[in-house]
Amino acid sequence: MLQKNDNLAKELVLSAKAARTKEQPISYLIQVVINNPTIINLAAGLVDPLTLPVEEVKSITNRLFSNTARGQTVLQYDTTQGLADLRKAVLAHMEKLEGMPASKMGISADELMITNGSQQALYLIGDVLIDPGDIVIAANPSYFVYTGALHSLGARVLAVPMDDNGMDVDAVEKILERLERSGELPRVKMIYCTSYFDNPTGLTLSTDRRKKLVEVAKRFSTSHRIMILEDAAYRELRYDGEALPSIKSYDPENKYTIISHTFSKPFAPGIKLGYSAMPIDLLHACLQQKGNHDFGSANISQHIALETLRDGSYYKHVELLKKSYAVKRDAVLAALDKHMPKRDDITWTRTKGGLYVWITLPSFFDTSRSAQMFQSCLHTGVIYVPGEYCYQPDENGRIPTNHLRLSFGAVPIEKIEPGIEMLSRVVKEYLASNNAPTAARVGSAV
Amino acid sequence: MLQKNDNLAKELVLSAKAARTKEQPISYLIQVVINNPTIINLAAGLVDPLTLPVEEVKSITNRLFSNTARGQTVLQYDTTQGLADLRKAVLAHMEKLEGMPASKMGISADELMITNGSQQALYLIGDVLIDPGDIVIAANPSYFVYTGALHSLGARVLAVPMDDNGMDVDAVEKILERLERSGELPRVKMIYCTSYFDNPTGLTLSTDRRKKLVEVAKRFSTSHRIMILEDAAYRELRYDGEALPSIKSYDPENKYTIISHTFSKPFAPGIKLGYSAMPIDLLHACLQQKGNHDFGSANISQHIALETLRDGSYYKHVELLKKSYAVKRDAVLAALDKHMPKRDDITWTRTKGGLYVWITLPSFFDTSRSAQMFQSCLHTGVIYVPGEYCYQPDENGRIPTNHLRLSFGAVPIEKIEPGIEMLSRVVKEYLASNNAPTAARVGSAV
Repeated sequence: MLQKNDNLAKELVLSAKAARTKEQPISYLIQVVINNPTIINLAAGLVDPLTLPVEEVKSITNRLFSNTARGQTVLQYDTTQGLADLRKAVLAHMEKLEGMPASKMGISADELMITNGSQQALYLIGDVLIDPGDIVIAANPSYFVYTGALHSLGARVLAVPMDDNGMDVDAVEKILERLERSGELPRVKMIYCTSYFDNPTGLTLSTDRRKKLVEVAKRFSTSHRIMILEDAAYRELRYDGEALPSIKSYDPENKYTIISHTFSKPFAPGIKLGYSAMPIDLLHACLQQKGNHDFGSANISQHIALETLRDGSYYKHVELLKKSYAVKRDAVLAALDKHMPKRDDITWTRTKGGLYVWITLPSFFDTSRSAQMFQSCLHTGVIYVPGEYCYQPDENGRIPTNHLRLSFGAVPIEKIEPGIEMLSRVVKEYLASNNAPTAARVGSAV
Repeated sequence: MLQKNDNLAKELVLSAKAARTKEQPISYLIQVVINNPTIINLAAGLVDPLTLPVEEVKSITNRLFSNTARGQTVLQYDTTQGLADLRKAVLAHMEKLEGMPASKMGISADELMITNGSQQALYLIGDVLIDPGDIVIAANPSYFVYTGALHSLGARVLAVPMDDNGMDVDAVEKILERLERSGELPRVKMIYCTSYFDNPTGLTLSTDRRKKLVEVAKRFSTSHRIMILEDAAYRELRYDGEALPSIKSYDPENKYTIISHTFSKPFAPGIKLGYSAMPIDLLHACLQQKGNHDFGSANISQHIALETLRDGSYYKHVELLKKSYAVKRDAVLAALDKHMPKRDDITWTRTKGGLYVWITLPSFFDTSRSAQMFQSCLHTGVIYVPGEYCYQPDENGRIPTNHLRLSFGAVPIEKIEPGIEMLSRVVKEYLASNNAPTAARVGSAV
């Protein structure tokens, strides 16, 4: 479908930005799944269809449209910034998540923006901060849809390693010191961090690193403010462990941090709604862009989100999701324990929330899309996300190819063990054919 | 709310694009209305709340969520391009509007993109075509939200006049000839035209000009294709006169034209949905951008749109809207006939569709926001959109300030005559205080 039509002889001259924009790698994977409908899909970042809040939304839409005046409001335009009542409701929700009044984070409903999923907020923030050549610091690995968007905006994405405590904040500090020495500090616009159960590793930034990250951003904000963009998409899908305060909570003046949440993961992707809190000057710039993009998100989605927060069905639903996903996460970890070869150089993250487990294989493995292992998996009947998509190249332009991401969001529970058994079989065959010795354990889980 | 906070001492360094982006002028007008809730609002580009399809959407959502499997599909992610079944349904709908098979326009459901209102399509098309300094040709006056977005993208918007037959296509040809001589033709990326009952004038491009516009774009596409962006937002709100073929219908190869439609005007803005057809190479570029912006519009809105087309409620609703808006349009024209001073240099468009009437006052009038007439209207109790927002400056940097736009979308029918009586009173007072002679009729209705 997307091949160029032969009769389009004369060139379409695209903008520099369009020329920089690559197709999201996930498009290829989606196509593979469409072509192989029986494949066990451990790649898709979808949520579990069985847990979607059909009854809740039915009841809400019934209520909304049984009142004619309310129904008319729902079907009319609202503002670019988003429904005022929804902004108040998500502010109260953020206070619950945080266990502190919003005022202690320097925010009110006026500092909130409602967007088409959290992705639109991430995009707008990039668009108003980044000129080609500007620098964003992110983790290796990172959420590849957003790093793709950053590259499209012309950003240089400099990556720091991760370990079991999340993004290495000391490494962030070192990069900033180096850029300060080279005179490039003015080009640093943003530090991007998925702070809870991240995509792709499932790991969470530790409390002390959260605090330190804000200190580091502040300290290097000598000529201009360096913003921290905290992507909290998976925050509410927590199965074990304590609720951590957000990075944003360490910025009581609301000067250096943005926090972005979504309704897609804890409620339903189909309403395509997110909300972000940020400094008022940045918000203003984002709203001016959003005025050009769409001058406001779908009002029907905003009213559904408002009602589910108001009637409490949102909270019941999140509890249900947590129970349901915890069972699937346990199934993934049990299947890996059972079927994967026992070697020190084969490890995976034991994620406490979110939808992903990240697997590290011996360094001589190649998990990439074009390599044999990926094709063997397809042939066997299972698909994963190659780790290569999630990495920024190192100084030598190299990307590690011995990682892969498993998602347990959409896959049916009864397919988890068979899928992981297939994957493990391919790994064993790869080991056998490469006649590999048992390696000593090296490095971290990431 | 949007003033910079004093404690944000350190500069936020924004991108060049953000620095170019102005606040949409409509934001000021919205604020005025919020501060003056009793004002008669002849400015707002909203649709009539009384005609919104509350019962229809109630019945559709009930149906969607009574079937658990369908409800789960509605609440899950779909694709960036948009729901395949909806693309098929809008293609069939476009065939009805056009009275010809889509294949004769070189399009199939694969050449369609679903967006967050038609605004997102307009934005994405600008974003993938325009680099700073590139040229877009538009009418004077034009839809100011989009020309604002074009300026934010760095476009130079060159404007041609309008008359009762819409955009002056001979003037488009002359501009292109001039740009060819000056060597600037490679910078011309797009011609923007609202082809039916446009915003702000209510005028429609005549059939012969539609055909000629395609010929002109083709002829000047010597080194690259110059695209025509046809904004057909008001196409279906036709109260008198014949249905005209689209500009797109004169481009059977689907090479030079994009047509953009919306569900906001003929159905409901609250579902925030639009659809566009365009050449496949341009579509591909737009989808890559949309992948970064939001990777797909709200699925719930897409399923509602699909169902209203399928069950026929869409068509019934459009008929109802047309009857209802025709009455309001008649009320506007009757009130202007009754209350406006009778002078050859006071004219207005007798629009056959859409939501707008465009008034031309004598050239010594100043309708702009900062001038006395606007303030007098506010004081009297009525608000309009100053014509200045809709113009690109001429070669001397001048913008005419003797026009204004009236909308009859949202204003209650019983407020139309009182509002226009107030406006007319202000015009009369202005004439009296300026002691103006009756001028000879000059120029066109626009």
